[in-house]
Amino acid sequence: MSLLVVGSVAFDAIKTPYGKTDKILGGAATYFSLAASFFTRVRVVAVVGEDFSSREEKVFHDHNIDISGIAREQGQSFFWSGEYGENVNEAKTLDTQLGVFGNFNPQVPDKFKDSHYVFLANIDPVLQVRVRKQMQHAKFVGGDTMNYWINGHRDNLNEMLKQVHALLINDTEARMLAGDPSLARAAQKILTMGPEALVIKHGEYGATVFFRNGAFGIGHHPFRAPTLPIEAVTDPTGAGDSFAGGFMGYIASQEKLTRDVFKRAMFYGGVMGSFAVEAFGTERLQKLTREEIDERYKVFRELTHLD
Amino acid sequence: MSLLVVGSVAFDAIKTPYGKTDKILGGAATYFSLAASFFTRVRVVAVVGEDFSSREEKVFHDHNIDISGIAREQGQSFFWSGEYGENVNEAKTLDTQLGVFGNFNPQVPDKFKDSHYVFLANIDPVLQVRVRKQMQHAKFVGGDTMNYWINGHRDNLNEMLKQVHALLINDTEARMLAGDPSLARAAQKILTMGPEALVIKHGEYGATVFFRNGAFGIGHHPFRAPTLPIEAVTDPTGAGDSFAGGFMGYIASQEKLTRDVFKRAMFYGGVMGSFAVEAFGTERLQKLTREEIDERYKVFRELTHLD
Repeated sequence: MSLLVVGSVAFDAIKTPYGKTDKILGGAATYFSLAASFFTRVRVVAVVGEDFSSREEKVFHDHNIDISGIAREQGQSFFWSGEYGENVNEAKTLDTQLGVFGNFNPQVPDKFKDSHYVFLANIDPVLQVRVRKQMQHAKFVGGDTMNYWINGHRDNLNEMLKQVHALLINDTEARMLAGDPSLARAAQKILTMGPEALVIKHGEYGATVFFRNGAFGIGHHPFRAPTLPIEAVTDPTGAGDSFAGGFMGYIASQEKLTRDVFKRAMFYGGVMGSFAVEAFGTERLQKLTREEIDERYKVFRELTHLD
Repeated sequence: MSLLVVGSVAFDAIKTPYGKTDKILGGAATYFSLAASFFTRVRVVAVVGEDFSSREEKVFHDHNIDISGIAREQGQSFFWSGEYGENVNEAKTLDTQLGVFGNFNPQVPDKFKDSHYVFLANIDPVLQVRVRKQMQHAKFVGGDTMNYWINGHRDNLNEMLKQVHALLINDTEARMLAGDPSLARAAQKILTMGPEALVIKHGEYGATVFFRNGAFGIGHHPFRAPTLPIEAVTDPTGAGDSFAGGFMGYIASQEKLTRDVFKRAMFYGGVMGSFAVEAFGTERLQKLTREEIDERYKVFRELTHLD
């Protein structure tokens, strides 16, 4: 089934202990849609500037991603430059230029409005809600956010939280959103704010999904997926968005949302995140095959299963 | 089979956001032996002072733990007082009094020397090696250490590392020991220092065991066990030692050391750690039943297994 994502399509310049890049394709919706494209048809709503060329278009087209919802405007695309030290969980931002993204007012093309699956990547929650309201056929909506909106735009964020079935955030964001240092308690608090499922991404330790009691009719016990212990994290950029892409993409590919589907979605999320960090930018995702994904899924199982 | 542990039997005074205790029974060998006692016969080598009374003896006796290797000396037992904030991974030490532990020179009773399984809890590596050399029938030796020995006693620690089959340490210790911020790389470096298996405890995220290639004839793929997302960590003291007790105790209870046994031992380690933090000191371990352990083992499986 079709999966719509709204978010940033951007350019990044990245430095890590393993090297550095010039201006390369990035953005949450880019990582998300590439990762999800291995599982289902993906549609992107975003805005780019004049620096978005046929070379970038080709990356999406090669993965059958529908980018007719990407608006083109005069000016430059969102640009982020950052540096990671040996602690891959913390990026130091060197430069941010909003460009045309500063006036982003996402318009969902009519032909996209039948999408049953929607992902609201990390943008202003006012815009997330605006997109959500255009998607009247959505069966399952996922969303992301970040510290900036949690700290400074809480009313708008609270509205967004009521509009998503699943929220996907990291440890720090979960603690901040709930105002509680205990992740397990934070999860319970966040589940009272709107989402029926909360996926907390633990970086190199994997991710846990918590359910509101009775959510989706599949009980309330949490489920934890691993990541691979990776010796060389070449570039952590986009790992979380790739997780979300694998997670939502797999769910969108399935007939029903059962507990088993949710569990496998958590594994596929981890798998896609583990690939994303192996090379700079979207390089690894671009070259990936479904066979490699299934192979790593087996490795994840071997890593965690008793038998 | 019999499992011998050498380490501290001590008293703690603990403060956490959930309350505080007076001087209560603690020490690595105490937590370890209580946790291991649910799986196998445990023998303790330690030293205590005059404050170790029949009340403390009873805790061990109630769990069939042989404490005839605990030396009694004039003076006070090792005493530690500490406080945890909301971040349960960091204790603030308020007071440490070595007492009779300052001159600890562990003597293994002759009747203990047939032990096939040995755990060298966190003490001076010189003493760990001295005990190890008295255990000529040991088939599997586990060991622990801490930042103090890693930073200041490296030569002695290096000698200890060559004497253990499995080293059990936490994330911070692993990074420090290897001098590498990447856990996966740190693991590979540490495996060249002596141990064939390295268990890295990730606190609330579980634990991963890494194997040297071909170790124990069971391959080299890592295995990861979870912990339970716990809303109220009443007292984190002893969680790591309880993990080690469950891990070593289960291994000692099995005929052969297969990969499956190793995997189950990782799960039982996590289970015992998860119980230890539910109450102050050893309170929860004292009241625990084997049925509760097996029940939680199933919950751990449900938390991580696809089917």
